Amino acid sequence: MTVAAKILGQLPELRLDSLIVSALPNVRYLSGFTGSNAVLVIGGSRPVLFTDPRYTIQAQEQAPECAVRIVRGSLFAAALKLIARKKWRQIGFEAGPIAYGSYGELHEGLTLGVELKATAGLVERYRMIKSEEEVALIRRAVETNSRAFANCLKSVRPGMAESDLAAKLEYQMRLLGAEKAAFETIVASGQRSALPHAHPTSNPLKSGELLLVDMGAVQAGYTSDMTRMLHLGKPGAKARALYKAVLEAQLAGVSAVRANTTAGAVDRKTRQVLKAHGLEKKFVHSTGHGLGLEIHEAPRVGKKDATTLLAGMVITIEPGAYVEGFGGVRIEDTVLVTENGCEVLTPTPKELIVV
Amino acid sequence: MTVAAKILGQLPELRLDSLIVSALPNVRYLSGFTGSNAVLVIGGSRPVLFTDPRYTIQAQEQAPECAVRIVRGSLFAAALKLIARKKWRQIGFEAGPIAYGSYGELHEGLTLGVELKATAGLVERYRMIKSEEEVALIRRAVETNSRAFANCLKSVRPGMAESDLAAKLEYQMRLLGAEKAAFETIVASGQRSALPHAHPTSNPLKSGELLLVDMGAVQAGYTSDMTRMLHLGKPGAKARALYKAVLEAQLAGVSAVRANTTAGAVDRKTRQVLKAHGLEKKFVHSTGHGLGLEIHEAPRVGKKDATTLLAGMVITIEPGAYVEGFGGVRIEDTVLVTENGCEVLTPTPKELIVV
Repeated sequence: MTVAAKILGQLPELRLDSLIVSALPNVRYLSGFTGSNAVLVIGGSRPVLFTDPRYTIQAQEQAPECAVRIVRGSLFAAALKLIARKKWRQIGFEAGPIAYGSYGELHEGLTLGVELKATAGLVERYRMIKSEEEVALIRRAVETNSRAFANCLKSVRPGMAESDLAAKLEYQMRLLGAEKAAFETIVASGQRSALPHAHPTSNPLKSGELLLVDMGAVQAGYTSDMTRMLHLGKPGAKARALYKAVLEAQLAGVSAVRANTTAGAVDRKTRQVLKAHGLEKKFVHSTGHGLGLEIHEAPRVGKKDATTLLAGMVITIEPGAYVEGFGGVRIEDTVLVTENGCEVLTPTPKELIVV
Repeated sequence: MTVAAKILGQLPELRLDSLIVSALPNVRYLSGFTGSNAVLVIGGSRPVLFTDPRYTIQAQEQAPECAVRIVRGSLFAAALKLIARKKWRQIGFEAGPIAYGSYGELHEGLTLGVELKATAGLVERYRMIKSEEEVALIRRAVETNSRAFANCLKSVRPGMAESDLAAKLEYQMRLLGAEKAAFETIVASGQRSALPHAHPTSNPLKSGELLLVDMGAVQAGYTSDMTRMLHLGKPGAKARALYKAVLEAQLAGVSAVRANTTAGAVDRKTRQVLKAHGLEKKFVHSTGHGLGLEIHEAPRVGKKDATTLLAGMVITIEPGAYVEGFGGVRIEDTVLVTENGCEVLTPTPKELIVV
């Protein structure tokens, strides 16, 4: 049974006649269609996929289980026409991701007696639990990521620009089959490693400095995410202590992951370890996040996240500590939640890499 | 006078006490801050930039003209607290780009007597007209694009995978200073060139086929966009005729661009030429679009777009014709609108490139 069919089956209990899916990753998840302009309506026996004439051929190829409607102009207007024709009255829409402007367009186009009802997470709930096929795709993206990293290690040397290393990493991922980088690859050296989301600069790598690499691939639509630390030349005591503390936190986080614990409990674990090292205030973000068709998706793995982890979820574990004026350390794996723990998908070793 | 100050000056006539800017390209345009999580409030003597602890250092560096507030948790909640403290009552928000979910968060957090008012295009109107500095940045992104294309031409040969050529093009752009590709580079050969937004595949390039390359760079935040056509081996009469028709349409489009004409008039020009060749129905998208901090921004250049072109706008001119089962041709330049016409920024020649 497809997820679209499962959602169709849920509509009566939600008191909905149909659901307008407008978040593109959700459209892709339900239909297979990868185009940049699409709306999917679930309500009749087959989902109806609306897109524009640029995608006539592609939509038919990618979404064989949908009725494809090619529309010039507003896809929402076309969806509302279908809804009017079918005499559907209670229409769900995706309140979280939809643009307020698109909501306005929907709202103004309603025919008499038709009501819009906000829904939340209907599709995302399914997306959180990956199928075997999806895990295989994520595993491939993770492997591409790790192989690209390994392929570039030998070229890292003082004098190389941060941005040239980032370019090399992304090129390697592409050659290994990635469509693109999952996000702008972070290559941050020295003090810049204390910026958790640094953009690579033309600054040359320097001996005696920490080097943070945070990278991910998108392959066949699915993402990966990994952070590793290098040190150019022999690390001093401060860098080693910082690395050791973060590694301990990361391993503790990984150990805490299992089905039926909460995301918040995992976050607290990494935070406790960093606190014991006096670094709690230097850890300025969450422990991790889910990934799949998007690089950030449910569940979040933060202090207050009560989501129960379930087998089949794929999340990152990525504590960090950032010391302004010195540098930062983050270590990140992509892991698969299992009944009794987790499988660390990322194969790259976690020692501080000295080059 | 900064644009933020100009918008502050407009607030009284809009009957607004303050404006919440939440679209990230608008936040960047007004403040210089490039982080992935930010809200800007215009209302007091200085704009207030809200972001999270990951960006403490970066926000202060990039947005010296703003008061920076580092927030754990919801940026909108923090913005509403400021608004309550300042006793502002009429609050503008960006209705088009804001997520409906974020709108809901704002709406629910309002204190008594405070009203939200939808605004449209307040910042985008300024962004349409590029400053000299912005034109220089776009020119640089365009040059990176064209140089990367030229650098890769010699490696194009039968047997090469579409995706490997795309990877090479993106790598060259990175080495030339781009942060990333402005969109997933399109390399589509043979019949696949009839898919206007084809994803590159592992299919090998074949002799005797058309090859479409659509690429863009993001450099220092600004984008470029270019499409060129190659033919592997000597093109046949059909490919040549298709190419000639689209080139004629593209040149006609470029000739039609000038300040004080409408975007729609430019679109009609390219469409007329393709109609004369019997190809009107094969041209399934708009003639072009504005670009700048985003790869697609105002104005659109489509059939019904009444926007008056003004000097300083930067748009693409990219007619195409797509013949299912044979192949497609698109030719695209990035052009700067001037008082008396336009400057074609893209330096790459427009002959069909035979390799």
